[in-house]
Amino acid sequence: MTTEPTPLRLPALDPVTLEARTGTGYPEPFRAAVANRERRALGTALGLRNFGVNLTTLSPGAASAQRHWHAKQDEFIYVVAGEVTLITDAGEQVLTAGMVAGFPAGRADGHHLVNRSDHDAVILEVGDRTPGDVATYPDIDLEARDVGGRWGFFHKDGTPYY
Amino acid sequence: MTTEPTPLRLPALDPVTLEARTGTGYPEPFRAAVANRERRALGTALGLRNFGVNLTTLSPGAASAQRHWHAKQDEFIYVVAGEVTLITDAGEQVLTAGMVAGFPAGRADGHHLVNRSDHDAVILEVGDRTPGDVATYPDIDLEARDVGGRWGFFHKDGTPYY
Repeated sequence: MTTEPTPLRLPALDPVTLEARTGTGYPEPFRAAVANRERRALGTALGLRNFGVNLTTLSPGAASAQRHWHAKQDEFIYVVAGEVTLITDAGEQVLTAGMVAGFPAGRADGHHLVNRSDHDAVILEVGDRTPGDVATYPDIDLEARDVGGRWGFFHKDGTPYY
Repeated sequence: MTTEPTPLRLPALDPVTLEARTGTGYPEPFRAAVANRERRALGTALGLRNFGVNLTTLSPGAASAQRHWHAKQDEFIYVVAGEVTLITDAGEQVLTAGMVAGFPAGRADGHHLVNRSDHDAVILEVGDRTPGDVATYPDIDLEARDVGGRWGFFHKDGTPYY
């Protein structure tokens, strides 16, 4: 007989025990870029409210998000496995396991990660929940606004998508 | 000739390029528990203000902190390498690489991590910066209060240590 390790109990957990979620609030035609993104909402599962933490798997070709920056919320990413290409106004750089990046609130430099490799990449994503945030998407006709804790998506002329 | 990889530039960085800091604001006799803790302040180096992110190495025997809980700030940890023992009111559990734990603000369950193995352990630590926080230490005569962004340390009768 072998002994199974004791399962973790809260306040700890093993991320593989959480359901992976796909899907996005983005309107069309902006969904395809993130269709092969899977997120596990660690922070929510642990009962955190002041910031969110996702363990996110990007299949080859998938992006973490459309390129954007936040007015009020900080963002941080840690590369757990594989490699991702970070794209900002300054160009591109490849981040491998153990590398990190941070995006301070209000810095007007759109960023996202794209998996250009042929293997899955895994990243840890952290973002705080400062209310009244706006996300600006410099490359596409999209703006996201936090309205009472939910994201609303608008054209740049202010017309809502939904 | 071999080609060196291009160094990362902000908003990305390689944590090994940051100075590791030791030391603690704890008064005596509470310092020894964290003497063999090294932290790299990733969030600060990346310009983040809404939350802090440390990459922390615990040598064998080292603790992440004295056992405590926060009134207003959430905390999250991700085990990068090695193994740590999480100690809470409910007892102990061993967390290995890839495991996580979270400590919601206001949950009165003192927690810390101790490296009881014979190898270094590395964890990623995240905590937000909600002002006016108080950290309660259930096992020792210590209370920490955030005063304008700096921690002050007090006896439980309210007398300051310094």
